[in-house]
Amino acid sequence: MDERLTCPYCQGGELLAKFGIKLAELDHSELILFKEQSHPGRVIVACKDHVREIAELSDADRNDFMADVVKVSRAISKAFGPAKMNYGMYSDKLHHLHVHMVPKYEDGFEWGGVFAMNPEKTFLTDEEYKEMGDKILAALS
Amino acid sequence: MDERLTCPYCQGGELLAKFGIKLAELDHSELILFKEQSHPGRVIVACKDHVREIAELSDADRNDFMADVVKVSRAISKAFGPAKMNYGMYSDKLHHLHVHMVPKYEDGFEWGGVFAMNPEKTFLTDEEYKEMGDKILAALS
Repeated sequence: MDERLTCPYCQGGELLAKFGIKLAELDHSELILFKEQSHPGRVIVACKDHVREIAELSDADRNDFMADVVKVSRAISKAFGPAKMNYGMYSDKLHHLHVHMVPKYEDGFEWGGVFAMNPEKTFLTDEEYKEMGDKILAALS
Repeated sequence: MDERLTCPYCQGGELLAKFGIKLAELDHSELILFKEQSHPGRVIVACKDHVREIAELSDADRNDFMADVVKVSRAISKAFGPAKMNYGMYSDKLHHLHVHMVPKYEDGFEWGGVFAMNPEKTFLTDEEYKEMGDKILAALS
């Protein structure tokens, strides 16, 4: 079976809604708000291409993808003022290149260490997700 | 005090030897073998510049840095054949941009999840580090 049919980043809809909310299309990626918000402002930047690995992209596509990543990083910093952004690319089992972007706050949750894939602790109301998404989009523009 | 004086990536020597072994200078980075080898082939690619954050680099420097990262990723894949490479950038407290590059092996240690910053479990002999470093350098060239 074509694995894109079960890929949340390719299909969106209910598959994506399990953990994320699409906020915007960027040049070479999609920006997704991560529903688990133990780290306020945590997002995912997912590549437009269903590739497993950043090393599979051409130089030009990789540069465009990383330009999106830092554009989002700067927007999150502007919107939420974290002490540091963390970045993680795993995809051991889900074969679609995406970056977890996790704002860290000094002496806050998981400060100084790696971040959990999904702490499953902090979820917001629809209204709060909307407000957070709008804040990120405003900082992006 | 200039924080570069206590930075293991700027100073090398004993500060770096606590966790890593320098293997090579790349175009915009240094390649460092991570002494903790729970994931065979785990390395660090550290930026040549003492910057805290990939979003601080110019577009050209970021592109050069990421070109080094994928070059190393391909070499590790060639040398050790992992099922997937993981990438993590944290630096909450140590202000020098570096990427942890962690080869994952199917159904092996930490497969399907994030990786620990340092599992502190598996260390090699000097001879084994030399052999591993040589294998990576051969795959790089």
